[in-house]
Amino acid sequence: MSSPQSAVPVAQIGVTGLAVMGANLARNLARKGFTVAVHNRSPQRARQLLADHGHEGAFVPAEALTDFVASLQRPRAIIVMVQAGAATDAVIDQLTPLLDADDIIIDCGNAHYADTRRREETLRGLGLRFVGCGVSGGEEGALTGPSIMPGGAAEAYATLGPILEKIAARVDGQPCVAHVGSDGAGHFVKMVHNGIEYADMQLIAEAYDLLREGLWASPKQIAQIFRQWNTGELNSFLVEIAADVLEHTDAATGRPFVDIVADIAAQKGTGRWTVQSALDLNVPITGIAEATFARALSGSVDQRRAAADAFAHAGGGHALTVSDADLFVEDVRRALYASKVVAYAQGFDQIDAGSQRYGWKIDRGQVARLWRGGCIIRARFLDHIAAAYTADPQLPTLLVDPYFATAVADGAPSWRRVVSEAVWAGVPTPAFSSSLAYFDGLRRDRLPAALIQGLRDHFGAHTYRRVDRPGSFHTRWSGDRGEAAA
Amino acid sequence: MSSPQSAVPVAQIGVTGLAVMGANLARNLARKGFTVAVHNRSPQRARQLLADHGHEGAFVPAEALTDFVASLQRPRAIIVMVQAGAATDAVIDQLTPLLDADDIIIDCGNAHYADTRRREETLRGLGLRFVGCGVSGGEEGALTGPSIMPGGAAEAYATLGPILEKIAARVDGQPCVAHVGSDGAGHFVKMVHNGIEYADMQLIAEAYDLLREGLWASPKQIAQIFRQWNTGELNSFLVEIAADVLEHTDAATGRPFVDIVADIAAQKGTGRWTVQSALDLNVPITGIAEATFARALSGSVDQRRAAADAFAHAGGGHALTVSDADLFVEDVRRALYASKVVAYAQGFDQIDAGSQRYGWKIDRGQVARLWRGGCIIRARFLDHIAAAYTADPQLPTLLVDPYFATAVADGAPSWRRVVSEAVWAGVPTPAFSSSLAYFDGLRRDRLPAALIQGLRDHFGAHTYRRVDRPGSFHTRWSGDRGEAAA
Repeated sequence: MSSPQSAVPVAQIGVTGLAVMGANLARNLARKGFTVAVHNRSPQRARQLLADHGHEGAFVPAEALTDFVASLQRPRAIIVMVQAGAATDAVIDQLTPLLDADDIIIDCGNAHYADTRRREETLRGLGLRFVGCGVSGGEEGALTGPSIMPGGAAEAYATLGPILEKIAARVDGQPCVAHVGSDGAGHFVKMVHNGIEYADMQLIAEAYDLLREGLWASPKQIAQIFRQWNTGELNSFLVEIAADVLEHTDAATGRPFVDIVADIAAQKGTGRWTVQSALDLNVPITGIAEATFARALSGSVDQRRAAADAFAHAGGGHALTVSDADLFVEDVRRALYASKVVAYAQGFDQIDAGSQRYGWKIDRGQVARLWRGGCIIRARFLDHIAAAYTADPQLPTLLVDPYFATAVADGAPSWRRVVSEAVWAGVPTPAFSSSLAYFDGLRRDRLPAALIQGLRDHFGAHTYRRVDRPGSFHTRWSGDRGEAAA
Repeated sequence: MSSPQSAVPVAQIGVTGLAVMGANLARNLARKGFTVAVHNRSPQRARQLLADHGHEGAFVPAEALTDFVASLQRPRAIIVMVQAGAATDAVIDQLTPLLDADDIIIDCGNAHYADTRRREETLRGLGLRFVGCGVSGGEEGALTGPSIMPGGAAEAYATLGPILEKIAARVDGQPCVAHVGSDGAGHFVKMVHNGIEYADMQLIAEAYDLLREGLWASPKQIAQIFRQWNTGELNSFLVEIAADVLEHTDAATGRPFVDIVADIAAQKGTGRWTVQSALDLNVPITGIAEATFARALSGSVDQRRAAADAFAHAGGGHALTVSDADLFVEDVRRALYASKVVAYAQGFDQIDAGSQRYGWKIDRGQVARLWRGGCIIRARFLDHIAAAYTADPQLPTLLVDPYFATAVADGAPSWRRVVSEAVWAGVPTPAFSSSLAYFDGLRRDRLPAALIQGLRDHFGAHTYRRVDRPGSFHTRWSGDRGEAAA
């Protein structure tokens, strides 16, 4: 298959790794008029791509990596789309000896940002450029327009930007791609995107559960409620496809599809990474954490079976109290929206903390804009987030932006009614209730954390600060209980 | 100071690193009749120890590490008590060339269990023994009897056990020390201990806050309630010292001490490690996670100030509803106990998951027994945990042990009343409410995780399992919505 023209540098960009995501990115590029070099470790995939989709544009296939590299115009731009981890390192190691100064490797896989930082540093030392690039939108997004989050050096973006802007999703005429920040910034932002996606899905699942328990509504009826919600401030891809899933009937049994799916939510790891990173950065992202742990709980099959047997009757002893169905639906909708605002506020706090830790100078308004289309969490309310951070780039928390402050304060009575009723009836709402507890903690004048500091000083002489003067202090708890400056 | 006798191997055990914890461990050993070699990088600390406490027993001081090592009987047992991380590695690197086969290095610092596993493997390769050893009890515990959690090889424990059993805390005549498992098991168990400690403190702080908000009680009055609680099933060191802290009056202002302490809870990192490890192990430890994030929230000073301004009136619009003070106190007590049981159940689940992942074969009943005395979370109810895991070493979750199942089921109405009232009144109870949500999730016959699996299959073709037959399946959501085996 390696043909003579492959040695002529005609391709503007290359893609190595032609599983579905890589193949669809390559097709997206070709459809947009770029000449695309394509390569895969086992050449069958490249052949199949050409056979099935060769008519869509200008592909330059190569079986040998050397031919693939030789077919690219300089500075070369090579998208790597292979498994995160060792496979990515292996491809990079094979490519680097074949490249020249200022060539660019773009890792579009789901790499951990720490790996991306390491790789960027190594390749920079070799005179090459490495761009860790988050891509969201799944297989379909890769083909028709994903949300793209590139990190790496600004100079690399000067070359790549015009290409990526052609293949990205567009909202209001603007492409959903921008240079997020240096080295690992792109993969970091993609990681937080996925963490928020966990929270979004858990919140939708809790809303569905509440509607089902509170109204004894069928999944099809709840799908209709979701379709209605999707016309308003909750408008989003995930609410839309939740309606699809809920209205679907299983052909084999005639039962609602959602009732024949095993209730064990799997995970591929980016939610876990997000929470682990937030712990390192000391940012409380309780919504994402509860969503991640809710998936773990769903998979604790033996424990669930034992607890279901032991505690069948430990609920509140009554069903959810719903005196007015319409009012209840509106309460759940407002509780969902308020909880969602908290989850996003926490995620954007994490982005800011990461940006400060690593010197990325991430523009949060820009991040919100490039999530408006293409990606899994695309939603109308990202316009408001973009506006909030554009109006005040130093906004301490999204919750105090006037638009969101009003939304949350107006929604608070509904939020409280829903969570307190759920608690009383024994319906688990870990993400709804954790988000509300975060909101109530954040707005609290004094927290009982003061007692925790007292305990820490008592058992471990960890010292405390005072409200009335600077310095650290220790009380001699086992002695005369006098206080000493520490 | 290095005297001739230091070259004669008379010491049964050595301690290097004589800051307060190391010095107190050395004194504890000497007081129990052991001849203790002591060493510190800057010899002044060793001199001070001898000057202040030399009369307490047989110390063999050495200024040079070679003399220190030479003063020890073989196989040598050397406790290292220096800062976790690079300092520990440095001391180990200095010691190893001076040691002989089967000599034992015992790291009593707060090392991460992954570091301990690495060090153990390295030293095993050199024919030496390395014991990562958790020690809890603070400075006083180190002197008078801590809880000790040694890992490492069983052969090392055969040498060390008789020494450690002499200096450990004792409960009902039993020493609070046992061989926990191989390599990093000791530090892993200590890490989870500390994570549980975070949850315990957060729960106590929430109970205090509820009592103060609900009863308009003074800290001194709440101290009396805690003293009363400490006579019953909540009997524990932390409840006891919480009463100390709450009844204390600040001498400078005449105000309750807890009101002059800045309400920012600091952390040294083991809570964070615990949650990060639980994420890796896929164990939902929501109580510890919420406690860790509550500390982070307390330190988010700028955000708290902004939110306090924006949402002063976003509470439930009323105070906590307390019609009967005694009933409310009892409700809070039961809610605290039930939440505490959940936090411990989750922590012991994590220990089991770590044990399975690393092949440690940890006996959870034994862990509960060695936490009964000496350590920060020592508490009467650990007897019940020990009994539960002794009666059924395969217990799927502590919550279904008959004693705890009854405690939690009986406490559930109080738990629900307290959390739903707190939610309604706007008092943040992240750990109480998260623990309750976990309980309600675990006992649930069907979880809305099924909808999450449907969403994942819709946007990412991640497939799902069915309740009615084995295999993985995918629905063609963008096509005819037919189902295919995956």
